[in-house]
Amino acid sequence: MKIVSTIPEMRTSSREARSRAARIGLVPTMGALHEGHLSLVRAACSQSDLVVASIFVNPTQFGPNEDYARYPRNLKEDCALLEREGVDIVFAPPVEEMYPAGPDTTWVVVEAMSNRLCGRSRPGHFRGVTTVVSKLFHIVEPDLAFFGQKDAAQVAIIRRMVRDLNMPVRIEVCPIVREADGLALSSRNAYLDQDQRKAALTLYRSLHRARERFDQGERETTTLIAAANTEFVSAPGVRLDYFEIVDPDTLEPEPMIRKQALAAVAAFVGSTRLIDNILLGP
Amino acid sequence: MKIVSTIPEMRTSSREARSRAARIGLVPTMGALHEGHLSLVRAACSQSDLVVASIFVNPTQFGPNEDYARYPRNLKEDCALLEREGVDIVFAPPVEEMYPAGPDTTWVVVEAMSNRLCGRSRPGHFRGVTTVVSKLFHIVEPDLAFFGQKDAAQVAIIRRMVRDLNMPVRIEVCPIVREADGLALSSRNAYLDQDQRKAALTLYRSLHRARERFDQGERETTTLIAAANTEFVSAPGVRLDYFEIVDPDTLEPEPMIRKQALAAVAAFVGSTRLIDNILLGP
Repeated sequence: MKIVSTIPEMRTSSREARSRAARIGLVPTMGALHEGHLSLVRAACSQSDLVVASIFVNPTQFGPNEDYARYPRNLKEDCALLEREGVDIVFAPPVEEMYPAGPDTTWVVVEAMSNRLCGRSRPGHFRGVTTVVSKLFHIVEPDLAFFGQKDAAQVAIIRRMVRDLNMPVRIEVCPIVREADGLALSSRNAYLDQDQRKAALTLYRSLHRARERFDQGERETTTLIAAANTEFVSAPGVRLDYFEIVDPDTLEPEPMIRKQALAAVAAFVGSTRLIDNILLGP
Repeated sequence: MKIVSTIPEMRTSSREARSRAARIGLVPTMGALHEGHLSLVRAACSQSDLVVASIFVNPTQFGPNEDYARYPRNLKEDCALLEREGVDIVFAPPVEEMYPAGPDTTWVVVEAMSNRLCGRSRPGHFRGVTTVVSKLFHIVEPDLAFFGQKDAAQVAIIRRMVRDLNMPVRIEVCPIVREADGLALSSRNAYLDQDQRKAALTLYRSLHRARERFDQGERETTTLIAAANTEFVSAPGVRLDYFEIVDPDTLEPEPMIRKQALAAVAAFVGSTRLIDNILLGP
């Protein structure tokens, strides 16, 4: 496994692979890898000839009061995990390599969707994501790129960006990986103490409650959301950010579920912001 | 010469060329071709193995009161000219091919520069340009792309976009082509009647006057601009939009010229908006 930290070196490796018609799969990550990331890597390995995993904690997608500085970083362990999975190249550029002149002035923005779900509570977050993903796509030039369903809004927004800008890459989405009790894996779970770890289950329980009502035939989203919200009433140390039911492609709120809908939740457990979601319907 | 109107067909041709390591040169145009465009095509032919010229009048870079509907379109003549120059592929997609679901919601924006020069009088113009150029780059995947110095702001903004987003393409800029009397070639010159054609020379004369003063040693831009503006005082039917002296890379106004500066002018001749520019300094 090669560890690459400069853009020219990454580009050379990609171009070399491309010249021998190798299919390139990219797994963009911010490191602090867990089984969720590794499931993406496994999907990439099974569908690509050259697997690139990028590790880059992108400053432009963090708000001024968010956890950029303390976001967990452990390149060495991450590389050991990726090597074991059969990754060919880890692309781990320093910040100065990606933003040599300070923050860029060019942004890729999916206007209609960037203020939905997490975008509402994290202004500027999604334009940071779409911009850095564009940069990674232009540097690595992958045929396939793998994202987790865990950030459902990110997935919808990136799919839309790729379609609108005619980017020559196919987006593959892998299911959420959960702990035995249902908690969605997240690098930010590392911030939780024992009590918070228990309280964090509130997100999953709220989704589960909406699903129960949906399975009983309820289709009005206000009713489903009200049912989900009850979980947060008696959850000490947990503060709901949003619980929404939206169209999974457009992220538009849906008053009535016709076919499929995305139920998405975000909440603070202590000062840690966690997200989770499920699809309702087929 | 192949004329291609769909994205998949264009992509297939590009990928085929790429698989045999051909260098792809792209000349993006809105058609209504003149010698200025053809100089770009000649540069592309001399530096590329496969030359693609795109012809697309991009609706998203026109304001609501601008000349999108009446912009000159003559695909047949354009193709004849391009074939004579040795172009390999003309990519001429209909609007529905580029924007199948109406205007996209994804924009590429060079924030710090998009409101400068023409961007100030044409809000949204440059984000339309950068977005469609991104789309063309993703569809054609050129190694080189050729633009005319005539739209100096466009050149600076596209260069910045390519750098910020790490796009794997080299931007080549070709000099302005002028009529014998100095008028910069433009597809919009076709709108001018005989009197307007004469009046249109005011733009060139104003630039020339600034250059005279610059050559005499003047470096204060307010003085140079004042000298240039005098040309517009006695020009009937000509309305100055702006005359500015800016840094050619950042488009920031410069109070004093240190090394090189861009003198850029835009004016309405009747209802036709024309632009022109020169570089002052080495």
